[in-house]
Amino acid sequence: MLDAIFNHINRFTDLSEEEQAVLGTMLKTTSYKKKAFLHEAGEICKGNYFVVKGCLRLYFIDIKGAEQTTQFAIENWWISDLTSYLMHKPSDFYIQAAEETQVIVLERRDYDELFDKLPKLERYFRLIFQKLHQASQIRIKYLYSQTAEERYVNFNKLFPEFVQRVPQYMLASYLGFTPEFLSKIRAKK
Amino acid sequence: MLDAIFNHINRFTDLSEEEQAVLGTMLKTTSYKKKAFLHEAGEICKGNYFVVKGCLRLYFIDIKGAEQTTQFAIENWWISDLTSYLMHKPSDFYIQAAEETQVIVLERRDYDELFDKLPKLERYFRLIFQKLHQASQIRIKYLYSQTAEERYVNFNKLFPEFVQRVPQYMLASYLGFTPEFLSKIRAKK
Repeated sequence: MLDAIFNHINRFTDLSEEEQAVLGTMLKTTSYKKKAFLHEAGEICKGNYFVVKGCLRLYFIDIKGAEQTTQFAIENWWISDLTSYLMHKPSDFYIQAAEETQVIVLERRDYDELFDKLPKLERYFRLIFQKLHQASQIRIKYLYSQTAEERYVNFNKLFPEFVQRVPQYMLASYLGFTPEFLSKIRAKK
Repeated sequence: MLDAIFNHINRFTDLSEEEQAVLGTMLKTTSYKKKAFLHEAGEICKGNYFVVKGCLRLYFIDIKGAEQTTQFAIENWWISDLTSYLMHKPSDFYIQAAEETQVIVLERRDYDELFDKLPKLERYFRLIFQKLHQASQIRIKYLYSQTAEERYVNFNKLFPEFVQRVPQYMLASYLGFTPEFLSKIRAKK
């Protein structure tokens, strides 16, 4: 299972077999059933999660008791509550498997040491965070500028397979509206 | 003026004098009057901007013709339309000086080469993008969960000096409401 992450890293840098072995000692592989929790609100987020297969989502529960999904991660994406992970603060978020999911976990206690042992990973994570920030900039613009229906149409155009893959209520909360509203839009099409 | 960026980088890594000299050849320093544009929508964003003194904002114009400010950068922050910058795509955003601002510019054509010449900067930019992604996660959560008034109160608590510093209409659009609404909240206090 670690091959998935080695392959991904080697798209951006080149780890030797020895370096891969060192990295391997710092990673854990695990699988989660659909709807299982990797992390729950109130806890300190101990893992940065790389999805090998499946789909994770990051969400919080708002003041009205509704789930708000702020991020998904599918194959080859990383997900974590970064503030909780980096600063050892209790988290407001949940991380849940949206499907049966295989993940590789980089635990917080290994994170700093990782770069001392494997400086090449600075480049890899620079590019990962660069990409995540890029995605956030686009995301924030959409949240400001589009109606719920436009967001749905646009998201559908960009990620048609993904729309088929995740439960409707998760997609609805990600796009910022109720599942009922999503059913209405779908019925119209 | 380059000392500002060398000092910032040396908080996270240690550049030798020679490395600083190499970096210096790849950076430009410049100043902008209040309201001047560093970058306009429709153009490819050619710079990643480090604020030495002052304040920049990133905004776009929505379908109703209203300015929507999605990001600010003050001293020691970087700002750019990253998708446009990295992928050479025309941008939807403007970058404008919210105050008289001194900036250091890292132009796109130097960006890749930078890491070949100065691998230590991988670490620096990994930490910069890590921080930016962390800020985005918090930002997106606020956009989902708080009323306009809560956003204002919260933002005021976190960044009281900043609230005094920027024009009301920019702050209002950043927090997602009209300047009139902001005046009302302020009047209530």
